[in-house]
Amino acid sequence: MEFQVLENGGVCSAKGYRAAGVTAGLKVSGQPDLAMVVSDAPAVVAAAFTSNLFAAAPVEWDRKIVRGELPVRAIVVNSGVANACTGTQGAQDARAMAAYTAEKIGCLPEEVLVSSTGVIGRQLPMDVIRHGIDLATEALSADASQDAARAIMTTDTVEKRVAVSLEIGGKTVTIGAMTKGAGMIAPQMVLCNNRPKQATMLAYFTTDAKISRTALQEALSRALGCSFNRIVVDGDTSTNDTMVVLANGLAENAEIHRETPELDAFAAALEYCAQTLAKAMVMDGEGVSKFVELRVFGAMDDASARQIAEAIARSPLCKTAWYGEDPNWGRILCAAGYSKVPLKPTQVDLDFDDVPVVRSGLAAPGSSEAQMAAVLKKRSFQVRLCVGAGPGRCVLWTCDLTHDYVKINADYHT
Amino acid sequence: MEFQVLENGGVCSAKGYRAAGVTAGLKVSGQPDLAMVVSDAPAVVAAAFTSNLFAAAPVEWDRKIVRGELPVRAIVVNSGVANACTGTQGAQDARAMAAYTAEKIGCLPEEVLVSSTGVIGRQLPMDVIRHGIDLATEALSADASQDAARAIMTTDTVEKRVAVSLEIGGKTVTIGAMTKGAGMIAPQMVLCNNRPKQATMLAYFTTDAKISRTALQEALSRALGCSFNRIVVDGDTSTNDTMVVLANGLAENAEIHRETPELDAFAAALEYCAQTLAKAMVMDGEGVSKFVELRVFGAMDDASARQIAEAIARSPLCKTAWYGEDPNWGRILCAAGYSKVPLKPTQVDLDFDDVPVVRSGLAAPGSSEAQMAAVLKKRSFQVRLCVGAGPGRCVLWTCDLTHDYVKINADYHT
Repeated sequence: MEFQVLENGGVCSAKGYRAAGVTAGLKVSGQPDLAMVVSDAPAVVAAAFTSNLFAAAPVEWDRKIVRGELPVRAIVVNSGVANACTGTQGAQDARAMAAYTAEKIGCLPEEVLVSSTGVIGRQLPMDVIRHGIDLATEALSADASQDAARAIMTTDTVEKRVAVSLEIGGKTVTIGAMTKGAGMIAPQMVLCNNRPKQATMLAYFTTDAKISRTALQEALSRALGCSFNRIVVDGDTSTNDTMVVLANGLAENAEIHRETPELDAFAAALEYCAQTLAKAMVMDGEGVSKFVELRVFGAMDDASARQIAEAIARSPLCKTAWYGEDPNWGRILCAAGYSKVPLKPTQVDLDFDDVPVVRSGLAAPGSSEAQMAAVLKKRSFQVRLCVGAGPGRCVLWTCDLTHDYVKINADYHT
Repeated sequence: MEFQVLENGGVCSAKGYRAAGVTAGLKVSGQPDLAMVVSDAPAVVAAAFTSNLFAAAPVEWDRKIVRGELPVRAIVVNSGVANACTGTQGAQDARAMAAYTAEKIGCLPEEVLVSSTGVIGRQLPMDVIRHGIDLATEALSADASQDAARAIMTTDTVEKRVAVSLEIGGKTVTIGAMTKGAGMIAPQMVLCNNRPKQATMLAYFTTDAKISRTALQEALSRALGCSFNRIVVDGDTSTNDTMVVLANGLAENAEIHRETPELDAFAAALEYCAQTLAKAMVMDGEGVSKFVELRVFGAMDDASARQIAEAIARSPLCKTAWYGEDPNWGRILCAAGYSKVPLKPTQVDLDFDDVPVVRSGLAAPGSSEAQMAAVLKKRSFQVRLCVGAGPGRCVLWTCDLTHDYVKINADYHT
């Protein structure tokens, strides 16, 4: 490992970042609901957003900013209301959030990224938002990584943040991050760049690295593919998913460019942070009692492996069996069988951790149900499905479906 | 309506059919677990089976029989063990079930269809099966529609059967049917015919109509498309789904052929039976408290409408909101938005029964959440999503996701 994990890190760990987390009054619970992150220096930005066609108003605002290739100074985030399916009013409100923040911290509206998370279809109460921005601006501090991480939570039960530092060209570069998300989690985010392409989990990374825009995009893209884009809690892909990396250059390293060892080192550190947060998100997923690392391999190609893995990760029968610590492996094969990927039952092997479960499509000889059940009693285990001799593989981090999931989601809105 | 619904009908309602439902001893609960249906005369058969690649051994046996175009004399069905993912032994056992039944009732093994439903991956206890076939053969009676329907149940809480009669060419033709299925329900059955193509719901139809094989296939295909293939309970497509129609000709009508008014009348009656049973299956789905008729229209084509409807019907967030009687319509739009069908948010309207919920992608003006919630408090309601001005449409019958679903499926196997 070419980097060091920092204790108690977060979005304020890197040089030149201040943050705040305040209670504007959006949540009935009275919990913190507005976060702000400000970079003292203009920051290069790379970002990825949801592929949902009902992308929320703040996502649309952010895409415009990110494609504009101008530096970014701040991020303002509210929880409680998603500002999705809110039309022209929603677009105006997203812009107004940026503009009001810009006015307070002294920059242009186009230098402020905006995120929202919460109930879809409601308009933002802008007086409450402005009140929150007032409070946040006053509270800005280089010691508020925890406050900010708390203020972006919705059904999350723990705040999630991480930071690492590494040496690049004799300079210490730091990456800090925070994320939220427990339900409506099956991100399929797409890198936002000049070629318009198009993930409610939110993830914010701040670094003091000096790095080119394209190198930052490359690092984000690598990290995204093996972190947030490989998690499935409930299989619902949100309208607001957002991953943003800001790089303000205050570490004063020689600028990092593509296809260099320095980028590899930086990308590896970013990837570590993203993976740590993505796993934490699944562990803290709504009602989750089991963390499952699902590995599908031997498929024709990676896309086929992914399609099989998604069928299993989304199957209510597989997920409830994990919750029940029930080695009912037929449900896993069944899900693979309806995934619409061609496969031969006789070529299928399945393992729970180190216990063979299925060999050549049949119950593995010599393994008892008690052995299988023992694996499932663990809080975290691996499910490995081999579907043939092909090169295609996929790893998904997923979870069980529990009574608490139903409770949380039958009662969330009203 | 060109047909009459018969009281207390089932697979014995048509002329020349006897049935039985007995307790062989496959279920720990001691509930009936083996059913038999016998036609006194050789019957023309049409059938559709699961598209799951892990099709169970009895499905493979049945496909061979149905493609052989020979008449069928009997169906034998066990519940408790699915005989799926059981390899060569499973295939031998399916054949042995047919052969032993054939021996008992005096026909060829190739005249006997076999079905199994229950836990995947276990071998059938053949001594118990043979004991059950002995008991069933002794119990065969023209008054056993209820017994048979009970013996095919797994997690079903009520037996499901129906019968109708209609006049064809001056003769009274009767169609009777039974079905089972409460979980692992998202059938995608494909008609089985000479051109090899390829749902654990089981559905058996018996009729005394005299009808050509191709006309019977046509009637089954029409009925399937607007009944079992449009239901989604949990979204898991089983390895054992089976729909079979037997027609023994004992009504002595002039043979029904394709492209005739007689076929239309027969098909409409069959469709009524299939729809009645498909709806009953969803109503009795595992843990179900809400029946939802989901209509998507205005799509580019029917396949696109289906894809959107399936995303909604499979969404844990939509299903738990229905359970919670929560008008959180953003979850419905969100699911449509990640369905991978191109659509324009501003063209989307949504209604719950007669209450406008969304107009042009925004909360419908004039409708209160209380009005929306009032619809959701009903046991059965309609969700209608218009996604544009295209001709594509789809109706799915689906349901909520409840605490009882989790309970049933976390505890089913062990």
